[in-house]
Amino acid sequence: MSVHQSILALRTRGRGTHEITDEIAREVSLSGINRGVATVFCQHTSCSLVLMENADPSARRDLEAWLDRLVPENDPHFAHTLEGADDMPSHIKMALTRTSETVPVAEGHLLLGTWQGIFLWEHRRAAHTRHVVVTVIG
Amino acid sequence: MSVHQSILALRTRGRGTHEITDEIAREVSLSGINRGVATVFCQHTSCSLVLMENADPSARRDLEAWLDRLVPENDPHFAHTLEGADDMPSHIKMALTRTSETVPVAEGHLLLGTWQGIFLWEHRRAAHTRHVVVTVIG
Amino acid sequence: MSVHQSILALRTRGRGTHEITDEIAREVSLSGINRGVATVFCQHTSCSLVLMENADPSARRDLEAWLDRLVPENDPHFAHTLEGADDMPSHIKMALTRTSETVPVAEGHLLLGTWQGIFLWEHRRAAHTRHVVVTVIG
Repeated sequence: MSVHQSILALRTRGRGTHEITDEIAREVSLSGINRGVATVFCQHTSCSLVLMENADPSARRDLEAWLDRLVPENDPHFAHTLEGADDMPSHIKMALTRTSETVPVAEGHLLLGTWQGIFLWEHRRAAHTRHVVVTVIG
Repeated sequence: MSVHQSILALRTRGRGTHEITDEIAREVSLSGINRGVATVFCQHTSCSLVLMENADPSARRDLEAWLDRLVPENDPHFAHTLEGADDMPSHIKMALTRTSETVPVAEGHLLLGTWQGIFLWEHRRAAHTRHVVVTVIG
Repeated sequence: MSVHQSILALRTRGRGTHEITDEIAREVSLSGINRGVATVFCQHTSCSLVLMENADPSARRDLEAWLDRLVPENDPHFAHTLEGADDMPSHIKMALTRTSETVPVAEGHLLLGTWQGIFLWEHRRAAHTRHVVVTVIG
């Protein structure tokens, strides 16, 4: 049994889902671990993780737009508005999705479903550099 | 330390929660691992996982019906409709619940709460065979 | 590689988020594990976990109030009402947030982001003693 761990600095282009499957797969490959799990952890509270279909981009666009409608900006109930109109909706969207995911590893590869990709979901309007920790154990 | 891993093929009966606690517990037993964690991973983007009360089925029915009301079919905003009216709501419901769960193992058993069960949540209308990967580490 | 596991009994003060970062960090310290992961598991279906900003408490209050508005009590659709008006909304809020989280450990410490805290989110109105299992592996 061994542990491989890296902190990835990933550049987002602003609000939306950004596929990071290749970056996570690279860490699994670097780890040399054959069987186990890759845990992915987002070090932020205004972006998050989601496993989503990576074939037809219209599915991701519909998902993103639906969540934007569920959590609109400028909700008059919000008190935490100093960091911008997109800040409080970002925290809520993060809480409704995921901060950590644990993906199985078999034969040295991520054991994802055929249509599954790992996505970093930027909830702020502006582009950001985000840090994601990958820990492979096996 | 050792790793035990299996891919379970589970048949759903269409939309709704299907308890899979016994199937996961069987893998923990087969692993021979005394103390550690069992990670559960759903290889799909139109079904998901949830830990839920397994005593009174009315609690699960209310949860399912609430989510159906939150994410109705035939939303005129959806563009991704080629795979059926239940496809895009399925992706959204998956994103709002869980793709991976990590359950502790102690004395060779899942360390669940008294009323907790592990459920595979089918979001499509039709019955499907779904694949869930169980990795026990300890 | 080794495994450290504890069941923490945590007292909530009723509905709301309760920071438990220090309690989880203490287990990491007790484990003596330098590099790996700390998995956190909530043994209940009417409270949950979330990683959230721990600087400005107004962000947490806005998040809590938003979820209260999304899942109001006394929804006439609910059939599962015997355990009180706050019971079914609690299960739904649990399903929309998290039961398990996996946080990386590096140099003997939780590898959290600058503003991230680990919170136990009590969804019932009354104070409860809740059990959270921490398993550190590395």
